[in-house]
Amino acid sequence: MKQLICDFAHDDLKLVEFHTSNGFHSIFCFRIIGGFGSYMFGMSEAVAKQSTEQTDAFKNPSLSWMIGFLFVVSFLGLFSVVPLRKIMIVDFKLTYPSGTATAHLINSFHTPAGAKLAKKQVKVLGKFFSFSFLWGIFQWFYTAGDGCGFASFPSLGLKAYENRFYFDFSATYVGVGMICPYIINASVLLGGILSWALMWPLIDTKRGEWYPADLKSSSLHGLQGYKVFISIAMILGDGLYNFFKVLSRTLAALFFQLRGRNASSALPIADNSSPESSKTSYDEQLRTRLFLKDQIPTWFAVAGYVVIAAISTATLPHIFHDLKWYYILVIYIFAPTLAFCNAYGCGLTDWSLASTYGKLAIFVIGAWAGASHGVLAGLAACGVMMNIVSTASDLSQDFKTGYLTLSSPRSMFVSQLIGTAMGCIISPSIFWLFLKAFKDLGTAGSQYPAPYATVYRNMAILGVEGFSALPKNCLYLCYGFFGAAILINLIKDALGKKWARFIPNPMAMAIPFYIGSYFAIDMCVGSLILFIWEKIDRAKADAFGPAVASGLICGDGIWTLPSSILALAGVKPPICMKFLSRGANSKVDAFLGS
Amino acid sequence: MKQLICDFAHDDLKLVEFHTSNGFHSIFCFRIIGGFGSYMFGMSEAVAKQSTEQTDAFKNPSLSWMIGFLFVVSFLGLFSVVPLRKIMIVDFKLTYPSGTATAHLINSFHTPAGAKLAKKQVKVLGKFFSFSFLWGIFQWFYTAGDGCGFASFPSLGLKAYENRFYFDFSATYVGVGMICPYIINASVLLGGILSWALMWPLIDTKRGEWYPADLKSSSLHGLQGYKVFISIAMILGDGLYNFFKVLSRTLAALFFQLRGRNASSALPIADNSSPESSKTSYDEQLRTRLFLKDQIPTWFAVAGYVVIAAISTATLPHIFHDLKWYYILVIYIFAPTLAFCNAYGCGLTDWSLASTYGKLAIFVIGAWAGASHGVLAGLAACGVMMNIVSTASDLSQDFKTGYLTLSSPRSMFVSQLIGTAMGCIISPSIFWLFLKAFKDLGTAGSQYPAPYATVYRNMAILGVEGFSALPKNCLYLCYGFFGAAILINLIKDALGKKWARFIPNPMAMAIPFYIGSYFAIDMCVGSLILFIWEKIDRAKADAFGPAVASGLICGDGIWTLPSSILALAGVKPPICMKFLSRGANSKVDAFLGS
Repeated sequence: MKQLICDFAHDDLKLVEFHTSNGFHSIFCFRIIGGFGSYMFGMSEAVAKQSTEQTDAFKNPSLSWMIGFLFVVSFLGLFSVVPLRKIMIVDFKLTYPSGTATAHLINSFHTPAGAKLAKKQVKVLGKFFSFSFLWGIFQWFYTAGDGCGFASFPSLGLKAYENRFYFDFSATYVGVGMICPYIINASVLLGGILSWALMWPLIDTKRGEWYPADLKSSSLHGLQGYKVFISIAMILGDGLYNFFKVLSRTLAALFFQLRGRNASSALPIADNSSPESSKTSYDEQLRTRLFLKDQIPTWFAVAGYVVIAAISTATLPHIFHDLKWYYILVIYIFAPTLAFCNAYGCGLTDWSLASTYGKLAIFVIGAWAGASHGVLAGLAACGVMMNIVSTASDLSQDFKTGYLTLSSPRSMFVSQLIGTAMGCIISPSIFWLFLKAFKDLGTAGSQYPAPYATVYRNMAILGVEGFSALPKNCLYLCYGFFGAAILINLIKDALGKKWARFIPNPMAMAIPFYIGSYFAIDMCVGSLILFIWEKIDRAKADAFGPAVASGLICGDGIWTLPSSILALAGVKPPICMKFLSRGANSKVDAFLGS
Repeated sequence: MKQLICDFAHDDLKLVEFHTSNGFHSIFCFRIIGGFGSYMFGMSEAVAKQSTEQTDAFKNPSLSWMIGFLFVVSFLGLFSVVPLRKIMIVDFKLTYPSGTATAHLINSFHTPAGAKLAKKQVKVLGKFFSFSFLWGIFQWFYTAGDGCGFASFPSLGLKAYENRFYFDFSATYVGVGMICPYIINASVLLGGILSWALMWPLIDTKRGEWYPADLKSSSLHGLQGYKVFISIAMILGDGLYNFFKVLSRTLAALFFQLRGRNASSALPIADNSSPESSKTSYDEQLRTRLFLKDQIPTWFAVAGYVVIAAISTATLPHIFHDLKWYYILVIYIFAPTLAFCNAYGCGLTDWSLASTYGKLAIFVIGAWAGASHGVLAGLAACGVMMNIVSTASDLSQDFKTGYLTLSSPRSMFVSQLIGTAMGCIISPSIFWLFLKAFKDLGTAGSQYPAPYATVYRNMAILGVEGFSALPKNCLYLCYGFFGAAILINLIKDALGKKWARFIPNPMAMAIPFYIGSYFAIDMCVGSLILFIWEKIDRAKADAFGPAVASGLICGDGIWTLPSSILALAGVKPPICMKFLSRGANSKVDAFLGS
């Protein structure tokens, strides 16, 4: 039995254990829910005091209600993801780069002794795994402060860096770029150029006209508001289009099946973005058969979802008095759709947008609840939503791993149930320990200032003001980009396969809108490496490309574990690699010299 | 006819032209004498005024005397190097990394169309040439100030950086490391560790006891004095040992020849540091034959040297009244020995130590002339000495290039005569233009502060005080290291070939004493790359190693031309990549934030 730890890129810790039985593997994923500190801590008294508005709306964290909350909320995501599984992995053949990388790593341990190519692949994977891990260690030493280190390297100049165009030397996203199809990487870059090089500078010229000029750069009343909401609109447009596409096909298939016709013709919902959808190798046939063999019945998933949603709807108002039962019901009705959107986007680009959907929940529920109850209701709704959508994307990654490693989906589901239960207890306990160990947790200027908690709280305060709080024209732009996303999809489906592969993907385009283009550049570097490699030696690139990418992704991922431990232990890097303009540098030299 | 520019690493500009004739190539090297600004400008009134002592001892630069001075001085080096040629290149088989790299580049243009391997080598060379050139450009952008950029990357930590242990990302020295034998690279690193990690910190603990504690770090009365003089002592020890070794063998050969015996047995002065000395390939036989065929008679070289030395001895006292004719005579008697030492050291490590020998001349002549005339005499002596020893090392590099490209040594000698004459006119003219264009040249704080001119002048002021000016115990340490260098050579020669190759080279050890270990680390990285490559694929490493190294050296070398032009045009890089300790970084962040 071996143990393997991989993929920390998405805030959750997975311990993957496996053994050979019945010819295929079982993977147990223990989820430790990360990132929940932000919204939960945003409700606390310590953070509320730092704000100027609504200081009396707070709920201090306590071990009992946090565990209870996680238990009634976390399992929903699990059940909602089960029906999505087949669509995402078998029909859409989405890449799920981290999941694919983990699968390659797992498969590498089970290489048959005779297979020469497989052995070589393992060697390549090991080499790049070590390189990526050591590169992570090396980078760490130069990150003594904010804006320090290779992650802030203005490789395209300072002007471009200010607009978040730079190569941040992240081995993970170079690897992701090597796994993702070229059109996805191109879309991400296109989206980055469209937003950060064109739209935001244009909107910035309207400062003082469309929105007040004296706002902080992080204020959602200003430019940041356009970034967040236009991004959400486009993601929702693409996600909903694909959701309804799948729904209509499924309904059509059901309709034909009821009429006694063979429904299999409706099964392969070929997605044009995947170039491999036409050819099906023996490996893939085997994988699909095993993946579908050990089926979890859809009725079971639906029933489980409904039962837990009912329990949750009844329980949550007792924990958060501001969160009415009908808010929760509405969240649970729309959550599977958004879970679909997030799992789909994550499959394309490896980027989970759970926090974006969480922000959407803050706004919608906050605005609905109004000024008197909205802040806590918004934050609690954010927690509920983030749990569901992040589970959906994370578990889809795991199912991809399972698919590629010929694991039993049923045993994976069971292990995820166990892992989630453990996470519901372990995560709040760790959080609680921190809270007791560091009395000033969350206070600005302290060792652990928890800046995101403040951001979430401020968003909730903004949310209660509703749509009117959005800066001028933001809503119209949102409508426009929502429509554009649907239009692009319609064009893509209308065109033949030959041309559709040149149409960018709206979901991939929308991600850098908010985050910036640096990871798009990483991904394009990965694409470029693979492209040149394929030009030089196609056979070798096909054989070893995924191994290289997996090594890069997993090595960097593993390093986050020791680096987190170092951060928690208060060990700080010794050196700051700082980038200054010539003017600033001479000022600093004069300052340091004096 | 093609033109090629390479090897600016040693302060001189070479324009290498060549064409095929009589089956081998001619190389014309035009030397533009660089680095002469420091000592010459050190004599000027502008620099003298910045000093506190001897401000009335100055001689302002003027076009007429500078050209005259260079003419009577520069050709001496040329004649002194001719007899050394065969010893360095055929007998010692020294590597001369830059010369070798240039030769590979030249050969690459003359690849026979049929030779598949040669074509591949040219491709590899071109690839690494471009990489090295582009890397030079990329690095440039981040060097907006002192201590900025990759050349100041504290890759082994800040503490190690302070003691000059770091990898400075220089493509040139990585390439040099790939060409130099392993033992040379190991010696350089050993010397670096011995001096910067052991000796200097130990001597530093005697601060206030062996030398005053309140000295500037650049003062030769303090730690810097130990560095410079111990380094000189060790280099002289090794150089003189090898000089007398060659002399004794030559005399022995002459003796046997006069007695009618065959002298050829005394010819191959096998140097143990070269692993290739035993096997002689067809290529090498051809090269040696061509190299020796077009012989310049030794009597001609000796006669030329004596005639020019006589003219120079008669002329120089008219230019510098403080420089008596007997000083010059003494310099010219010892100069060929030191030229031998420098050509030998440069052949081993690619590092010309001309400025070190120049410093020696400042001290010896300065001390001899005494306080009243010493400063100008010392600086002028420095100029004479530097010209001879730097010519010796540069021309040995060129002869190595000529040897590897099957060029006629006689036509090379003629072209060097022409090139030197051109250099004697062009270099002072450029210097003169600068002097007229920038009125405040050499003033501290101005655009071109000429810091080295001040350093040279201060050394001359120190020199007139003689040995008594050296810090305590420095002279004894110098004796010790001089003796150690001779002892190591004796052990090496006494041991069999099997063990001698594990004995470090004293000359190589002494170079980092003064300069620091960063280039030693570059060279060891080069060694390591070659070592791993040889482990993986010996045949490929042997075939392509020199091409990779040559590409790295020449690409970086070429970039210095546009970068110098940018510097002269006043174009400064936009960004500073700065390295700060965590403490300094938070201070700077607070300063920049306020």
